Amino acid sequence: METKQISKAVIKRLPRYYRYLGELMEDNVERISSNELSKKMHTTASQIRQDLNNFGGFGQQGYGYNVHYLYTEIGKILGLDTVHPMIILGAGNLGQALANYVDFEKRGFKLVGIFDVNPVLEGIAVRGLEIQMLSELPFFLRENNVEIAILTLPKNKAKEMADILVENGIKAIWNFAHLDLETPDDVIVENVHLSESLMTLSYNLSKYRQEHVE
Amino acid sequence: METKQISKAVIKRLPRYYRYLGELMEDNVERISSNELSKKMHTTASQIRQDLNNFGGFGQQGYGYNVHYLYTEIGKILGLDTVHPMIILGAGNLGQALANYVDFEKRGFKLVGIFDVNPVLEGIAVRGLEIQMLSELPFFLRENNVEIAILTLPKNKAKEMADILVENGIKAIWNFAHLDLETPDDVIVENVHLSESLMTLSYNLSKYRQEHVE
Repeated sequence: METKQISKAVIKRLPRYYRYLGELMEDNVERISSNELSKKMHTTASQIRQDLNNFGGFGQQGYGYNVHYLYTEIGKILGLDTVHPMIILGAGNLGQALANYVDFEKRGFKLVGIFDVNPVLEGIAVRGLEIQMLSELPFFLRENNVEIAILTLPKNKAKEMADILVENGIKAIWNFAHLDLETPDDVIVENVHLSESLMTLSYNLSKYRQEHVE
Repeated sequence: METKQISKAVIKRLPRYYRYLGELMEDNVERISSNELSKKMHTTASQIRQDLNNFGGFGQQGYGYNVHYLYTEIGKILGLDTVHPMIILGAGNLGQALANYVDFEKRGFKLVGIFDVNPVLEGIAVRGLEIQMLSELPFFLRENNVEIAILTLPKNKAKEMADILVENGIKAIWNFAHLDLETPDDVIVENVHLSESLMTLSYNLSKYRQEHVE
């Protein structure tokens, strides 16, 4: 399948298509037209057709999309057809929240280790895995196949750990720490900067109020 | 200050400027040129100048930017110069993680209530606030000044609660639930769809591998 030169905007929308198709499957919907799908998703049918055409299109004139087929194909494009072993660094509330997302595992994101710096947490089980100390991380990485590391550590610790991850061959970091990681080009980083998201909300609220002064 | 017609891309970058300027202040840096700042932020000096010109510019030729002044002004644009009372719906790990972000409170996001549906959690204190039952939410909203609601509930419950929030005059929702909320135009919603972010990481990883097959 030709997947080159697809715009970032389209990629950003794929998980949303995947989510809606998953919901349709739960509702036992077998096929859907781009029109119907566009109404559900509050977008246009032409955008849906254009987006999906990037991947060779999956629809048939007069039939619409086969929901299960489209769901499976988008899943493959998103890399959800293989298992991604992952570890969590930082076993605080956020780390534990992420460890307990059942949906992740359903999609192939399999938690294989959880680490923290706090000795009080050592050995406590989270989703069946005992929390290990961060000092054991390099050894763990050499002995186990890990693909994705989730960073929920404080800023300074995150920086230090990112270097250890990279040295030990980790190629994907999901970063919740409030800093921009400096990593080589072959390491994929996806940031979730929660305070920046909250500030965007605050900005939009202020702006709305300025524009709608009573 | 003229803040109309500023592109979404610029707005998205403002919290990042704010973060870097905050770090410079911690390091006691009083002024910085757009060149120096661009090196730190891995962007171009001309982008920085252009972005900040949207807000009337804050720099002086040959002097650079006054870090404290710029930090304060961007804070104002982001609405961080006022207190935003907020509540959290969903006192699980994610809700508790968000409740415990010290940085939020420093920036005016003041937690005033935390709610859950699970009676086991009732009365347990999180950051000095006792967890209340969601059934008490409408009364609480009528009696208290709340600006932002953070939704960390499961999908179905989130939908129901969003309606109650809107009916009771909440104008800003920070949504972590895995659905698109249907809210009136005057309600600002900022979504954090964690599984979509993880899928984007997975997509980029798959793509990188396809393009760099050994």
